[in-house]
Amino acid sequence: MPQTSVIQDINDYLNRYVPLFPAMQARLERCDETGLSFVAPLAPNINDKGIAFGGSMAALAALTGWAMTRTTLDEHGETAEIVITDSVQKFLRPVRGDIVTECQRPDAEAVKQFIDCYRQRGKARWSLDVVIRADGEPAMTFTGQYGVFRGG
Amino acid sequence: MPQTSVIQDINDYLNRYVPLFPAMQARLERCDETGLSFVAPLAPNINDKGIAFGGSMAALAALTGWAMTRTTLDEHGETAEIVITDSVQKFLRPVRGDIVTECQRPDAEAVKQFIDCYRQRGKARWSLDVVIRADGEPAMTFTGQYGVFRGG
Repeated sequence: MPQTSVIQDINDYLNRYVPLFPAMQARLERCDETGLSFVAPLAPNINDKGIAFGGSMAALAALTGWAMTRTTLDEHGETAEIVITDSVQKFLRPVRGDIVTECQRPDAEAVKQFIDCYRQRGKARWSLDVVIRADGEPAMTFTGQYGVFRGG
Repeated sequence: MPQTSVIQDINDYLNRYVPLFPAMQARLERCDETGLSFVAPLAPNINDKGIAFGGSMAALAALTGWAMTRTTLDEHGETAEIVITDSVQKFLRPVRGDIVTECQRPDAEAVKQFIDCYRQRGKARWSLDVVIRADGEPAMTFTGQYGVFRGG
């Protein structure tokens, strides 16, 4: 699928099925061979200190890892139920503008292991890192564990 | 302040300054001598699997720890800037109804240490646990580190 269609497809899906996604005015902006990136403006995600709310950043980071998992499955012709089993966030500095998440594609060996495991066992899990920057420096780091399994 | 006023005060504050809070249709429902509890209905916080979105649960848990910190400061006549510095979530089972967070009050010694430290150094930090249950069993556990410091 062309990248623009992938982006449209994921944005349509999240706007339809995850009401918090349009509430955050979030969108998948980039999905290419290096990774993917969501963006959400500050206004609907602000907190009482006038900076990005940690809860919004955590939610958008969780969706970023979900989208990387879904995209990777899609590209291998697979579908699966995707769940997040745990996550860790570190809040390092304030974000005073748009929230922009970045998730790099796992290396080829990690992707192969993940897909092979899913095909052989009908389930697999992996860990994904997401970062949100402010002025080029990490402002929030996120590591999430995602599990996939064959749907009913 | 009577508990009903505390509850009203925190709900008004979050509805005014954190747009994601009304977007989640969340509210502080209980704040008493044992702890506090936020509630949010499933509909605005649902995901593509028809269960509670992990990002909504993480955001509501983060606010729960924030509210416990603010309430504790208030009760000791103190105000402070409150920040979350890191958090860990474990997603253990699906939540198919209202999201209800629970945070127990830290024991008296932990509260004393926290307040004493803040009064002496102008800053302090502590760790708070929040749980969301489904059918009486933990469905998500959250541990957050919160820092407080004197505002400018």
